[in-house]
Amino acid sequence: MADVLILLGSKSDIDVAKRATGILDRLQVPWEMAVASAHRTPDRVRTLVEGSDAKVIIAIAGLSAALPGVVAAHTIRPVIGVPVSGPLNMDAILSIVQMPPGIPVAAVGLDRGENAALLAAQILALSDAALTKRLHEHRAEMAAKVDKDSLEVQ
Amino acid sequence: MADVLILLGSKSDIDVAKRATGILDRLQVPWEMAVASAHRTPDRVRTLVEGSDAKVIIAIAGLSAALPGVVAAHTIRPVIGVPVSGPLNMDAILSIVQMPPGIPVAAVGLDRGENAALLAAQILALSDAALTKRLHEHRAEMAAKVDKDSLEVQ
Amino acid sequence: MADVLILLGSKSDIDVAKRATGILDRLQVPWEMAVASAHRTPDRVRTLVEGSDAKVIIAIAGLSAALPGVVAAHTIRPVIGVPVSGPLNMDAILSIVQMPPGIPVAAVGLDRGENAALLAAQILALSDAALTKRLHEHRAEMAAKVDKDSLEVQ
Amino acid sequence: MADVLILLGSKSDIDVAKRATGILDRLQVPWEMAVASAHRTPDRVRTLVEGSDAKVIIAIAGLSAALPGVVAAHTIRPVIGVPVSGPLNMDAILSIVQMPPGIPVAAVGLDRGENAALLAAQILALSDAALTKRLHEHRAEMAAKVDKDSLEVQ
Amino acid sequence: MADVLILLGSKSDIDVAKRATGILDRLQVPWEMAVASAHRTPDRVRTLVEGSDAKVIIAIAGLSAALPGVVAAHTIRPVIGVPVSGPLNMDAILSIVQMPPGIPVAAVGLDRGENAALLAAQILALSDAALTKRLHEHRAEMAAKVDKDSLEVQ
Amino acid sequence: MADVLILLGSKSDIDVAKRATGILDRLQVPWEMAVASAHRTPDRVRTLVEGSDAKVIIAIAGLSAALPGVVAAHTIRPVIGVPVSGPLNMDAILSIVQMPPGIPVAAVGLDRGENAALLAAQILALSDAALTKRLHEHRAEMAAKVDKDSLEVQ
Amino acid sequence: MADVLILLGSKSDIDVAKRATGILDRLQVPWEMAVASAHRTPDRVRTLVEGSDAKVIIAIAGLSAALPGVVAAHTIRPVIGVPVSGPLNMDAILSIVQMPPGIPVAAVGLDRGENAALLAAQILALSDAALTKRLHEHRAEMAAKVDKDSLEVQ
Amino acid sequence: MADVLILLGSKSDIDVAKRATGILDRLQVPWEMAVASAHRTPDRVRTLVEGSDAKVIIAIAGLSAALPGVVAAHTIRPVIGVPVSGPLNMDAILSIVQMPPGIPVAAVGLDRGENAALLAAQILALSDAALTKRLHEHRAEMAAKVDKDSLEVQ
Repeated sequence: MADVLILLGSKSDIDVAKRATGILDRLQVPWEMAVASAHRTPDRVRTLVEGSDAKVIIAIAGLSAALPGVVAAHTIRPVIGVPVSGPLNMDAILSIVQMPPGIPVAAVGLDRGENAALLAAQILALSDAALTKRLHEHRAEMAAKVDKDSLEVQ
Repeated sequence: MADVLILLGSKSDIDVAKRATGILDRLQVPWEMAVASAHRTPDRVRTLVEGSDAKVIIAIAGLSAALPGVVAAHTIRPVIGVPVSGPLNMDAILSIVQMPPGIPVAAVGLDRGENAALLAAQILALSDAALTKRLHEHRAEMAAKVDKDSLEVQ
Repeated sequence: MADVLILLGSKSDIDVAKRATGILDRLQVPWEMAVASAHRTPDRVRTLVEGSDAKVIIAIAGLSAALPGVVAAHTIRPVIGVPVSGPLNMDAILSIVQMPPGIPVAAVGLDRGENAALLAAQILALSDAALTKRLHEHRAEMAAKVDKDSLEVQ
Repeated sequence: MADVLILLGSKSDIDVAKRATGILDRLQVPWEMAVASAHRTPDRVRTLVEGSDAKVIIAIAGLSAALPGVVAAHTIRPVIGVPVSGPLNMDAILSIVQMPPGIPVAAVGLDRGENAALLAAQILALSDAALTKRLHEHRAEMAAKVDKDSLEVQ
Repeated sequence: MADVLILLGSKSDIDVAKRATGILDRLQVPWEMAVASAHRTPDRVRTLVEGSDAKVIIAIAGLSAALPGVVAAHTIRPVIGVPVSGPLNMDAILSIVQMPPGIPVAAVGLDRGENAALLAAQILALSDAALTKRLHEHRAEMAAKVDKDSLEVQ
Repeated sequence: MADVLILLGSKSDIDVAKRATGILDRLQVPWEMAVASAHRTPDRVRTLVEGSDAKVIIAIAGLSAALPGVVAAHTIRPVIGVPVSGPLNMDAILSIVQMPPGIPVAAVGLDRGENAALLAAQILALSDAALTKRLHEHRAEMAAKVDKDSLEVQ
Repeated sequence: MADVLILLGSKSDIDVAKRATGILDRLQVPWEMAVASAHRTPDRVRTLVEGSDAKVIIAIAGLSAALPGVVAAHTIRPVIGVPVSGPLNMDAILSIVQMPPGIPVAAVGLDRGENAALLAAQILALSDAALTKRLHEHRAEMAAKVDKDSLEVQ
Repeated sequence: MADVLILLGSKSDIDVAKRATGILDRLQVPWEMAVASAHRTPDRVRTLVEGSDAKVIIAIAGLSAALPGVVAAHTIRPVIGVPVSGPLNMDAILSIVQMPPGIPVAAVGLDRGENAALLAAQILALSDAALTKRLHEHRAEMAAKVDKDSLEVQ
């Protein structure tokens, strides 16, 4: 059973999704993934959201990027939105960030699938001590990597 | 029976909606109006869209402005989107303009309810000779107004 | 006889135009196409607009992108404007979206020729039951494609 | 004991904070609040973050808006960032959204304290059935308000 | 007989126009003024441009601001475009600046009617020694004003 | 003797300058060219401007693009500014467009050297009937090119 | 004798300048102030810069904001640029930030005269132990103010 | 012993850093360099800043670019911030420029490591006559290069 549901607005968002699954696998967080367009397949979005037992949903979309907001309209579980880069970039960022009062989406940075996964894991870790430990280890590894990088540039 | 359905994402969009109804009344185009939020009331949006016999739908929304796109997802009738001004403006404009391939929305300018109404009337006039005549008269009046304004500034 | 007139502000906009004609051909909507610059050939724009019996006009332009608005100034038929990408992108988008009150243009997304064609078809379908059917089929195909894409990413 | 810690980058952010506490009170989520500047009082930020048992942290900041990211650097608990409006707006939005890989912040919209609170509640509700119920009731009330607004504009 | 023709896209642009006429009067450059919309009265724009003997044309417009470009399409005389402020500002600026190759417009700053007038005068002064002298006097007065301002702030 | 002085803020602006000289050569307008940086060689800018008998000056610059304004500060001859593209584009455009009251610069579009040359020629043509004729011929050729392009796309 | 020279591009920038002098007075750093426009009085800018013994120069300007760069062109002393707010804001910010390679300007935030003064003081404090002490005291006062503000909002 | 400490937010900022070290080497200003992330290694940033005797600190960062501000929070020495280019560019620029009142950062242009180095050198030169001389020589070389470039383009 998946703890995180990853929805892609388009198959072309797969590279951003893989950044998320790479982190989730490393943190041993089970996930499931599907493509569902808020505009081309609104029923499918709803069915997937309502049919999934995942505790957190990551929605990835570019352009007018309605997917995270539409997902959030159908659930009170936390929804994380990932804007996907394109010719404008600001279209997807603002569509996901500027949700109206009442229906929140947690926006992360442009193409930042890895941060969506980490945020999902941090949310799940509130009731999972083993995951908390793995998140601390991941942070320690990142810090060690910075130290190593620093030695290389000197 | 209404030819144009006007949907507001929030009651606070009423001033932009009145710019539309003012023009529609003048052109004798029957309309109906409702508030329906793509995020707070997704079912209501669908029910209103599917329950209306209007030929053209005008959707007015600010911020992440998903309403026009969500309406367009539920119908193949022409949907006109009106971005509503706010602290950023570009959020609503880009959300409405940058629809993904396959589901078009006809975007008009910021707060430009009157142009949404005129565009709806121009679409309806393709099969309505009397409305065509009224549209030509409206254009002539606008041109006459420019002449009058010009005399005043000289 | 063409139902849709496609005007290009420059020959270099041809790729965007082909996205439109691809959709129109698929939906069996007859079209005609011409190059006409609002700035270099203003008379030609007018002659083409007034000489065409098309019910809907698609105007494609980049940079200051005056073409859709200039076309709209010469007709009360619905005019769909397609902004073409360039080094700024926002120049063409805003020029087409921000039309003054009284003369509407229906803006679609950047380089989104296919959505201009679909919007034109949706307008024509209001009085064409066979086209309505083809539009529904096209939507169903798009939805099926999303299902297929979803299976591939899983 | 507070479940949510609200940090303000400046006392002038209090109105945005009150939008958050209004929602948290209504949902019966205990909170605590403090002012702490990432730039003027970096130690204080750290002390407050490490000294609090809150499960979720909301950080509110304008201008270069480093606070949410600096808080996130000191904890693996979920951090929600709220950009505060000012003469540019995009400075705070982009600073909070565009976090580098590895340290996520959950960005909500400009001045959108209420959505930060709702997102925090949705996260807490994953292990709190009573809060889940209150969130569903809140959504139902919002939907009922839209129905009421719709009757008023008709 | 006027040396400068000032065209306003809308009567509401009158304040920007007055900044221009104030400078032209001071420099003793004869001018004429009219309102003519590129979108609402395209024929009127052409008639005014072709019917005027002015050597330089100043076109003032906001929003999608097609007027300066449309004027330039009808004449090889120098056309100065003045973008007028509004909710976006960048719409008018970019529409006027980003003219396509072949048809130049000389853009000045937002609401900068006075600079449009000075630029027109500088162009006319190329063949008018008395105007050249007045322009030099105007510059000297501006410099003296800066000296005076400097004393006041000390 | 040159009628147009072309100043480049950097040798790297040469491609934009060549767009200008191509047009000036075609219109038989004599020109001279030099590199002079407003920031690295302020004295050189002044010497070149004051030492040239050119009637019109074209200043080409990118980034903070102070050159056109600094040139304009040293002369009352018309100064045409050409913003050069780079990672931001808006820096050069706004620096050249947004001149303060009193010192005008005639801004043309991004990298639009050809329009700077045409604008210079249009200014010179006010007192040069042969150049006027060549400008009309150039416009006719451009219009004929559009007709030819139109045949090709049909 | 002044350690800091403050130059205003226009008398209207006085409020931003006062934010700087308030801080400088508090830190006991002697200053002098003058108005000098890079565009209207280029000689005056040079005379003031070359005639002043100040070690650091603060240049305050809005719109195309060439003043800081022009000052930097005439000195190798550190030049701090303060962009002044207006209808666009980004014009002044980008003009000051995006200096070309070779001539640096130290940009601070929009209207941020106080930070320009603090940065000047920090530079001067490198060889002034008493000023260093006063800067540390100022920081401590700011931190204490945050603590006090925090108590008030609780 | 280093006079300038260069901190990189990420090893990938090395090219911008090399632009800085190239200039510092040429001006014979000793420097030291390290990688330290404001978000991944906040303690390391502090340790490096407090442990260094450098008089000036250059902090290089992209995306939300908190590093320069976080460095400035830990020292009263002058901190120069260099925004690094990426898909948005404005994120890093605004994060570094728009520091809140009280904690200044000296922002230079996008990727402008060389200007950060020159600004650092200009600050150090206030108490170093030999460095002052080298800075004047560097300026003279730049001016000579412009003269040479000018001859080449003629």
